Amino acid sequence: MSDLITRLRSGLPEGAVLTDPDVTASYARDMAGFSPAGAPAAVVLPRTTEEVQHVMRTATALRTPVVPQGARTGLSGGANAVDGCVVLSLARMDRILEINPVDRTAVVEPGVVNATLSRAVAEQGLCYPPDPSSWETCTIGGNIGTGAGGLCCVKYGVTAEYVLGLEVVLADGRLLATGRRTAKGVAGYDLTRLFVGSEGTLGVVVKAVLALRPAPPRQLAMVAEFPSAAAAGEAVSSIMAGGHVPSLLELMDGTTVRAVNAMAKMGLPETTEALLLAAFDTPDPAADLAALGELCLAAGATDVVPAQDVAESELLLQARRLALTALERVSTATMIDDVCVPRSQLGAMLDGVAAIAAEHDLTIGVCAHAGDGNTHPVVCFDARDPDESRRARESFDAIMELGLALGGTITGEHGVGLLKKEWLARELGPTGLELQRQVKAVFDPLGLLNPGKLF
Amino acid sequence: MSDLITRLRSGLPEGAVLTDPDVTASYARDMAGFSPAGAPAAVVLPRTTEEVQHVMRTATALRTPVVPQGARTGLSGGANAVDGCVVLSLARMDRILEINPVDRTAVVEPGVVNATLSRAVAEQGLCYPPDPSSWETCTIGGNIGTGAGGLCCVKYGVTAEYVLGLEVVLADGRLLATGRRTAKGVAGYDLTRLFVGSEGTLGVVVKAVLALRPAPPRQLAMVAEFPSAAAAGEAVSSIMAGGHVPSLLELMDGTTVRAVNAMAKMGLPETTEALLLAAFDTPDPAADLAALGELCLAAGATDVVPAQDVAESELLLQARRLALTALERVSTATMIDDVCVPRSQLGAMLDGVAAIAAEHDLTIGVCAHAGDGNTHPVVCFDARDPDESRRARESFDAIMELGLALGGTITGEHGVGLLKKEWLARELGPTGLELQRQVKAVFDPLGLLNPGKLF
Repeated sequence: MSDLITRLRSGLPEGAVLTDPDVTASYARDMAGFSPAGAPAAVVLPRTTEEVQHVMRTATALRTPVVPQGARTGLSGGANAVDGCVVLSLARMDRILEINPVDRTAVVEPGVVNATLSRAVAEQGLCYPPDPSSWETCTIGGNIGTGAGGLCCVKYGVTAEYVLGLEVVLADGRLLATGRRTAKGVAGYDLTRLFVGSEGTLGVVVKAVLALRPAPPRQLAMVAEFPSAAAAGEAVSSIMAGGHVPSLLELMDGTTVRAVNAMAKMGLPETTEALLLAAFDTPDPAADLAALGELCLAAGATDVVPAQDVAESELLLQARRLALTALERVSTATMIDDVCVPRSQLGAMLDGVAAIAAEHDLTIGVCAHAGDGNTHPVVCFDARDPDESRRARESFDAIMELGLALGGTITGEHGVGLLKKEWLARELGPTGLELQRQVKAVFDPLGLLNPGKLF
Repeated sequence: MSDLITRLRSGLPEGAVLTDPDVTASYARDMAGFSPAGAPAAVVLPRTTEEVQHVMRTATALRTPVVPQGARTGLSGGANAVDGCVVLSLARMDRILEINPVDRTAVVEPGVVNATLSRAVAEQGLCYPPDPSSWETCTIGGNIGTGAGGLCCVKYGVTAEYVLGLEVVLADGRLLATGRRTAKGVAGYDLTRLFVGSEGTLGVVVKAVLALRPAPPRQLAMVAEFPSAAAAGEAVSSIMAGGHVPSLLELMDGTTVRAVNAMAKMGLPETTEALLLAAFDTPDPAADLAALGELCLAAGATDVVPAQDVAESELLLQARRLALTALERVSTATMIDDVCVPRSQLGAMLDGVAAIAAEHDLTIGVCAHAGDGNTHPVVCFDARDPDESRRARESFDAIMELGLALGGTITGEHGVGLLKKEWLARELGPTGLELQRQVKAVFDPLGLLNPGKLF
């Protein structure tokens, strides 16, 4: 047995160090396509902070790279293994340590599943808003690592807004506490937010203090049909300029609508070029939806259909949640982009993506967190066809180029991982990139934590 | 003329470099007591990013410390000059460059006064929530430097929540762009939030992209009288546990109430031991206030008085805004603390401060952003009396010690500056402090930016 495995086992309980290659291979990658993954030397499954410290001390002593993992639902290769690494899965550190309705805080370990936390706080009349599509399986640690978003963000913001404090095991095994348990606090640099979205490259989160909100009323939704994506984008602009605060404002283009129908027989209108889904969780959602409906009609909507009740609203949301899965069935492979543009540029972005699809002779379905300007163009292609695969990658890049040209960012919520490294350098520029590398070196001078990700 | 002055003048317009000692002395300090301030070698007042870059290049070439300043309304000495420094006032970089109602963003220079921005965005139906007490004079750059809060934070959060992207001149004169113009974005480490609250020690903010909200309805307020601070704390707990989201939840203790009456004849109830001010900006604020009133009565309030209209609400808020000024008249000097505790510990904090006041034989008035657990105990003392001054400083420290013991932070919104350096080290611990120093060294390896602050 190698020195690495012997040392790891010396500080971890029975069954917490996996070395069977068939087993470790199953931990090699997240859900991103087009991202290389190596073969881990071992997978460790600690249950305590001390065990994580032991793993990091061992890795530092032997100069072994460590790849932290949550549920591997990421879409950018940020959790992919490198050859000979230790995969550090936080999945077994899954305890909810505290829920406090007065402080509106939860204290959790990183392996807690998002949906588990959401349900636990709901029992106390509270809500943890960030709701990525993978919320039934993804972990809070992974959400923190990627800075996850979701459908609720248009009203309630992203993961960064909900992380008050952290406990982090550093690359050398030291334990760092950041932030606070209080509603406010400005004592020193905000290292907490530095860790959020750092994709496991700065340290291993072993505990988080999260902010909660009172649970809002159940939302009521409506759907509006548009003859063009540009018209839907115009409706989003007038909704935002009108001062409305929907709890959800999502878009599906015609390709996506037809894919969802094909998969799930949802009966969505097949002839539409863009569906806008909106919802309110206000005291009088029907009135708010009526006002929104007027704006949609003024922007050219051909039909506006409010849900009759919460159950019908839930069906509409379900259609939206199925979008990615449905688009994955259009061909043999997909690449999911995540470009976020200023809301006012949403129409231009949608038109631009359609032009890119035509130019590359590909199907690209778009669903979007329209109220945030966060688009998910999904490039559908046949992975067995080398030329089509090449065009898919080119169109994926062209979409990011378009996003940057419109004042946007290459990633709204999925992260950089392996998939967008070259593009991160382009978005940050040389000064930004250099400083980010130097910050990385402060926390991980040997470069052992999730090497090769981000930069 | 010194080399420094000659070089500074070579890249700055006429009148932008002040050297008259009487004039430069007026830039020596912010509004914090008990904080040393040195004599600046010069005060520079640039109007452009290029001019700021010239200042920083000059300072780096000559190894001259630079102290960035906004309106010097800070309360921790964070803007105090050091001997021989260049004071870099951003006051003349005061243009609002853009307000976009669809994107709900503003792009501003750092010298824009908070109230000026608030009024400008209000004309377009928008709102920039952070509202520190000094909002009529303080600048956005200063707000970003300190991570400023205010009365609105209980519902709308603090400055960090509203800064999307920055342009920053680094110590060596390079220009760094951080963050984004979009609602969401996770491209690389969140350097934007690292700059927020960094008190001018990492770089000089020359442009900011700020998030705006739709202007809420005017808020309606009420006041509740309590026979003890603990009872008011209990009311806050039950309001929070009850899922209410007031737009304001402020507390004034009896000492503060009497001080406000003495100064402004507001007619507040003199016999109360604690006043709670609450407000809602919801569709039906009267109904929400009624529910809150019930909770206050259940917690022991002796009287609950809702404002009859917006004008009466504004009067109540004015009383709260006068609190610090009024307490400053109680004796010849004050020290204003800024300890934030978990909301559930508010009662314990208030009782503890009363005990500290008794023990040190001093008047300590407390006003608090009660809904955030952010207390401002104001130690009133006669600065001409050395023993009383010593007891004032001791009680100020005892208040921070109490806050930390209750799970709080030494600063909720005023920052560390010079005043709380020793306490920052205590709150962060050795690992946190070491990492913060190393982060500082990444951005400012020569230690020229606002030296001696924070650490």
